[in-house]
Amino acid sequence: MEIEGRSYRTIWRAEDGVRVAIIDQTRLPHEFSIVFLEELEDAARAIERMQVRGAPLIGATAAFGIALAMQADPSDAALERACARLARTRPTAVNLHWAIARMRRRLGELPAAERTGAAYAEAERICEEDVEICRRIGEHGLAILHEIAARKPAGEPVNILTHCNAGWLATIDWGTATAPIYLAQRQGLKLHVWVDETRPRNQGAAITAFELLHAGVPHTVIADNVGGHLMQHGKVDLCLVGTDRTTRCGDVANKIGTYLKALAAYHNGVPFYVALPSSTIDWSMRDGVKEIPIEQRDGRELTWVRGRTGDGRIEEVCIVPEGSPAANYAFDVTPARYVTGLITERGVCEASERGLARLFPEFAAGRDVA
Amino acid sequence: MEIEGRSYRTIWRAEDGVRVAIIDQTRLPHEFSIVFLEELEDAARAIERMQVRGAPLIGATAAFGIALAMQADPSDAALERACARLARTRPTAVNLHWAIARMRRRLGELPAAERTGAAYAEAERICEEDVEICRRIGEHGLAILHEIAARKPAGEPVNILTHCNAGWLATIDWGTATAPIYLAQRQGLKLHVWVDETRPRNQGAAITAFELLHAGVPHTVIADNVGGHLMQHGKVDLCLVGTDRTTRCGDVANKIGTYLKALAAYHNGVPFYVALPSSTIDWSMRDGVKEIPIEQRDGRELTWVRGRTGDGRIEEVCIVPEGSPAANYAFDVTPARYVTGLITERGVCEASERGLARLFPEFAAGRDVA
Repeated sequence: MEIEGRSYRTIWRAEDGVRVAIIDQTRLPHEFSIVFLEELEDAARAIERMQVRGAPLIGATAAFGIALAMQADPSDAALERACARLARTRPTAVNLHWAIARMRRRLGELPAAERTGAAYAEAERICEEDVEICRRIGEHGLAILHEIAARKPAGEPVNILTHCNAGWLATIDWGTATAPIYLAQRQGLKLHVWVDETRPRNQGAAITAFELLHAGVPHTVIADNVGGHLMQHGKVDLCLVGTDRTTRCGDVANKIGTYLKALAAYHNGVPFYVALPSSTIDWSMRDGVKEIPIEQRDGRELTWVRGRTGDGRIEEVCIVPEGSPAANYAFDVTPARYVTGLITERGVCEASERGLARLFPEFAAGRDVA
Repeated sequence: MEIEGRSYRTIWRAEDGVRVAIIDQTRLPHEFSIVFLEELEDAARAIERMQVRGAPLIGATAAFGIALAMQADPSDAALERACARLARTRPTAVNLHWAIARMRRRLGELPAAERTGAAYAEAERICEEDVEICRRIGEHGLAILHEIAARKPAGEPVNILTHCNAGWLATIDWGTATAPIYLAQRQGLKLHVWVDETRPRNQGAAITAFELLHAGVPHTVIADNVGGHLMQHGKVDLCLVGTDRTTRCGDVANKIGTYLKALAAYHNGVPFYVALPSSTIDWSMRDGVKEIPIEQRDGRELTWVRGRTGDGRIEEVCIVPEGSPAANYAFDVTPARYVTGLITERGVCEASERGLARLFPEFAAGRDVA
């Protein structure tokens, strides 16, 4: 996507052919700053510190981290050390482990001398594939936006509510939930996006708003509390979110608070769609509420808020009285019955085992489909 | 309630008999600061700037504001000007208009020379009545807490989720939703309160947490996004909130986001109670979603967050990119069907026209009761 007239992806091999460039997302929305990763440890820390975040981008960063490790030492031992180090960075990101396993498989079969070149090539292939998957999600979602637009009075924008950031900055390009939005914007479809602030880390207010602003998409930032009221009053035409893990039955784990929006959508007749690359489907799980582990993070992410002061300094401020404890559950699970449809790279399906099996028979095969 | 061993109410006539003292709630939780209102305009601005907030306290402040106006000029014209000025301060809280009407009625029948004394006396009477009403709400709510505790395994705390601040700082003393909690705490009932942060103004994180901390009630601050997840996992025994306006049919206007919690409670079998003095019932309205005006406040309340830096300075930081607009709807309406019961000073009733008419026949009389 473009920032100030220049086209960017979220991660790329630098011109020297060795270093890896990323956008430091902890500086957004107030600074757009490029950081260069020079060795494995830089890549691992970029994931841990959330300079890069979003399941697809975490996977790609891990892949490039292995390339950096191979550049320094292409031995078997170094490969194993790199995989182990990267696997420890974030506990829940499914794509992280998927990308590490893919790199290990690809490089393990090669002599050490060929590993560095192959590692960069494979990391770049992972990126290219992700871009293509997001573009296809965008096309399938775009058809839904057109359908909704066709039912609205002419000239009225399609009002989309999104939660957290499932945007291009969470992937390599396009994003998942945002891909249909960016495609629709390019076609001149009139849109407006309600951007949930997404406490406690404010990915909506900071990152999604930044993306939409730079893409010229009309949007309004709202508190996470507001969506229900908007839906009661007909101000939301559809909800469109991403997911961190979806079970084979269509239960959707996503950023904490997604479930509350899904309930409000259900009660107010608002379609609730989830956009996802199939790599986020966990075919080993059925009941998301019971089975998906929910990460609990440091309460400090809630009690301290980072932003820019009136005179331009970046500061953190504490918003609770000293002595009050805080809990920080990072995700919740939206049961499939509240999800109108899943938008994947292969098309849109019902959020159910049957729906997913129809699109992905090779994964569903060999297991009983209810 | 006590702060650091000293007993406070939220508003009182100063020792000089003229000025009116309030706690500046915009400084909480980091500073506990008393401010003196000297004239009508101070009172009006204290309401507008939310130095005082909460429907009952807004009403009491308006009453004292009229007393301050009478002190300066007890003429009919001044009385009308004062009522008009105060009525413009906040649109949603019905107590404001109730208190203004009561003061106008009381003072209108008196000669100008008697108005000042009568105005202070009436304002103080409003305060005393509110304290007594909250205490009674507390007793009726306490019975509910005991019932729930009796059904839990011995030694397990009753887990209450509350949204915003319907605490003593929103009233004159005791609070509405917190009154049962404080009474239960004094009786040694084991409790734990999940405190919704309550974006965008953070009244939960700042004010409710401050109250509970100083009262020694175990509590945990959570993002507004979390309650649905907690209810899905059996971690909430009941929701207990206040209201700014309740229709004669039991629809409840309260801080934005209340509706989302009510939906989650409904779907997870968690009782959802609303505590209210009968002065917040609007007998002229039936359908809350259609009829209750919802205040829209400055988007800056969302985009700028105030708190204390690590080295003790109070700072405001901006959390959105420059150029992203924000919307700030302050309240939402929870339809009566999602409300388990209304806890009033006269007892607990079903959230319906029939339930309210049973407790308040004198208000319901003369109108058709569905």
